[in-house]
Amino acid sequence: MLEEFRFTLDQHCYLDPTRTVVVAVSGGPDSLCLWELLRQLGYRLVIAHLDHGLRSEARTEAKAVQNLARERGEICVVEQEDVAALADRQNLSIEEAARTARYHFLFRQAHLHQAQAVAVGHTADDQVETVLMHLLRGAGLAGLRGMDYYSLPHAWSSEIPLIRPLLGIWRSQILAYIEEHHLQPNLDASNQDRRYYRNRLRHELVPYLENLNPGAGKRIWRMARLLRDDEAALERLVDTAWATCCKDSGAGFVAFDTQCLQAQSLAIQRRLVRRGIARLRPGLRDIDYAAIERALNFLQAPTRSQQIDLAAGLRLELQDNRVGGEPWLWLAAWEADLPGADWPQVDSGSQQTLQAPGEIELPAGWKLSARFVPANPAVFAQAFANANPYQCWLDLERLDFPLLVRSRQPGDRFQPLGMGGHSLKLSDFMINFKLPRRARRGWPLVISGGQIAWVPGYQPSEPNAVRSSTTKVVYLSFKKQP
Amino acid sequence: MLEEFRFTLDQHCYLDPTRTVVVAVSGGPDSLCLWELLRQLGYRLVIAHLDHGLRSEARTEAKAVQNLARERGEICVVEQEDVAALADRQNLSIEEAARTARYHFLFRQAHLHQAQAVAVGHTADDQVETVLMHLLRGAGLAGLRGMDYYSLPHAWSSEIPLIRPLLGIWRSQILAYIEEHHLQPNLDASNQDRRYYRNRLRHELVPYLENLNPGAGKRIWRMARLLRDDEAALERLVDTAWATCCKDSGAGFVAFDTQCLQAQSLAIQRRLVRRGIARLRPGLRDIDYAAIERALNFLQAPTRSQQIDLAAGLRLELQDNRVGGEPWLWLAAWEADLPGADWPQVDSGSQQTLQAPGEIELPAGWKLSARFVPANPAVFAQAFANANPYQCWLDLERLDFPLLVRSRQPGDRFQPLGMGGHSLKLSDFMINFKLPRRARRGWPLVISGGQIAWVPGYQPSEPNAVRSSTTKVVYLSFKKQP
Repeated sequence: MLEEFRFTLDQHCYLDPTRTVVVAVSGGPDSLCLWELLRQLGYRLVIAHLDHGLRSEARTEAKAVQNLARERGEICVVEQEDVAALADRQNLSIEEAARTARYHFLFRQAHLHQAQAVAVGHTADDQVETVLMHLLRGAGLAGLRGMDYYSLPHAWSSEIPLIRPLLGIWRSQILAYIEEHHLQPNLDASNQDRRYYRNRLRHELVPYLENLNPGAGKRIWRMARLLRDDEAALERLVDTAWATCCKDSGAGFVAFDTQCLQAQSLAIQRRLVRRGIARLRPGLRDIDYAAIERALNFLQAPTRSQQIDLAAGLRLELQDNRVGGEPWLWLAAWEADLPGADWPQVDSGSQQTLQAPGEIELPAGWKLSARFVPANPAVFAQAFANANPYQCWLDLERLDFPLLVRSRQPGDRFQPLGMGGHSLKLSDFMINFKLPRRARRGWPLVISGGQIAWVPGYQPSEPNAVRSSTTKVVYLSFKKQP
Repeated sequence: MLEEFRFTLDQHCYLDPTRTVVVAVSGGPDSLCLWELLRQLGYRLVIAHLDHGLRSEARTEAKAVQNLARERGEICVVEQEDVAALADRQNLSIEEAARTARYHFLFRQAHLHQAQAVAVGHTADDQVETVLMHLLRGAGLAGLRGMDYYSLPHAWSSEIPLIRPLLGIWRSQILAYIEEHHLQPNLDASNQDRRYYRNRLRHELVPYLENLNPGAGKRIWRMARLLRDDEAALERLVDTAWATCCKDSGAGFVAFDTQCLQAQSLAIQRRLVRRGIARLRPGLRDIDYAAIERALNFLQAPTRSQQIDLAAGLRLELQDNRVGGEPWLWLAAWEADLPGADWPQVDSGSQQTLQAPGEIELPAGWKLSARFVPANPAVFAQAFANANPYQCWLDLERLDFPLLVRSRQPGDRFQPLGMGGHSLKLSDFMINFKLPRRARRGWPLVISGGQIAWVPGYQPSEPNAVRSSTTKVVYLSFKKQP
């Protein structure tokens, strides 16, 4: 067993034999065995025991752990926590509160002692029970894969790993080892209490399954191992898909490229949505199955008019939040303000005049300025290769001053540059160049002599644009005050 | 229920309402319900009933199905099969033999009636039982995903799908439907017999789990749905990986590019090995977990000296079977002859003379010929862009005739073309250009004036190769008699 254990530490837990390990020791058979094995391999240990303050024997048990550590000349830290009060305070079940308090204590000790890892005594039997528990709770692959030999439990530490070196060793092996080495474990009576869910799995369900199909436990353990690798392969796919499809994220929102999302397989779509939800609601432990299915259904045929209520105060919607692109799919908190809708608008029905040089103020801190720039090759080059939709260069001699700035009116037409003077209904043009629907009504238009000279967000009109014969240039530009 | 059923047929089973469906009808509640629902939607049906010849009531039950079909004016086919004898003959369990006989019968009928699908009555409860059965048997994701609404069961047909339209409907719903529509199902007493494994799952395990965790069945059903999509995503990855990594396959063998395989994630490696085994042993139902793990361990650090025994008479080995490349990983039957080792060899220690024009015979049907070809641009172009390692062009005036053909001797050196006349020990050269180790001893060498003029499989020597000043060309070429 010692050799198998050494192999596990090296191959699965990545331990450095010269550095300290914090060992969680309740005093039960599993943790005593873990302690003894690590000791035999010569590790520097910090024995950590948390008294949960739940059972009358707890003090005696803590003492026993302390005494053994003293005999062995090892550092031992014992703390007490009122778990019942913590459960009350944080509205958790007793089991959850105990778990929270325990890991908090263990990782605090690990940081204090600059340990390389926290080792806990989960066994192969625990693994099987965990998998079954996840199965009955309806977890997907991420749950069925069970626990890991090595993990970074981000809730507790982003550097110090949690390791489970006994994960491949069965309880029967541990009990034999304990006896052989004359170790005296505490026997926690609550481990027999069948009112606890896990105990019913351990003492009823697992034996029943073994009886139904001998070797079932071992096979479930193996299955978890395979599923762990399957899950890892899928997570790699999700990483790639996330990097490709997630276009923006911020306080309370994540935006996906809709077509990119639709091109993924169902499994990856589902995981991307779950990952998005996990980003926005990091504390959420169970993400509702039905919510994810609602999201996927919507994703197959999203419409602008719908907002899908997911869960935990999140929504999913298709929203035009940028000029000149397909609408993105936004996963967002109901109360979140989506970004990107920060574009220039004018009050519908209003009209302002713009001189050159000159500047006018628009709502929400936007300004539109006009100034003269030299008609030289550098300026022409800039005008022809313009990538900023909020600036343009016009031919002064082809403009009628003052320019007007107003929103759209019935009958507006536009001759986009590069279409040979062909004119379109402005409403069609706005659709074609993917001006977000909700931006259209208040979209500023620059008018010269009754005709649209520029639709901001796009190029200037054919008649007003600069050309090689242009001798005087007017430069228009929108700016937002920071 | 009818609407839900119509949706399933359309969305999950892809049925065409105008074409015939073969319905497997045992006469039990599930199949009666399936029949009734399809009938209500106006499908053209062929009712197919197989009497397994196992129970005394079977004839009466068959009659009842026939009568109902006659009343309804539907085509009904009843056949009898001696399943017990079949089980004996083919060394199968009764359940397996019954299943084999049944599907064989159903798909035969489907072909006869040019049906679009075979419909069977598996329910949501059956799905849960199937998942649990796979769990206890230790199946991976492919088993935990359960059954499909739609599948092409290649063992029976590569065109006609097997559909399970009731897969999302629970037995309780079916019983209510049956009662509401006054249908009288056969009640097969063997469904209650707890000696049958599936019946113990149905009548003991599932109720126990429901009691332990109400709603567990429903959650297991949902989990299977998610896992189905996960599995599909992984299978897509495997398809891509297979196309990239599988370099050759034939009777009894599959060859993988070793580095390509090593670059895959563990999950994909495992699946590629499994797929390879499935290709070589299509009948094999359970592939041993330990065999796959042995394969993966070997794959991490393969050596030429090892052959790994997998299972079902298969081996895994690293083998140099081609000239000029890294060794491949061969998955093969123990008795299979690997291809590619079919290269020219000479008897070690022997020596033959080669005239031009002329031809000599080598072992195993190989021949080496020499002939003159014109020294024109077309020939030069061919010589400089040569892709066939078993031919070369030499400068006649730089050769001493007769040429000798022999295997390597101690002290042999070689001046490879393109290395500026630099000479190497032949043994080093053979390693560098990746001549398979076992080919080296008998590898033919073409000698001119005591020096190696050509190492077949590679280019000619620097002194003997054709160059722009060459006026007479000798063309050497190996051929194998078919």
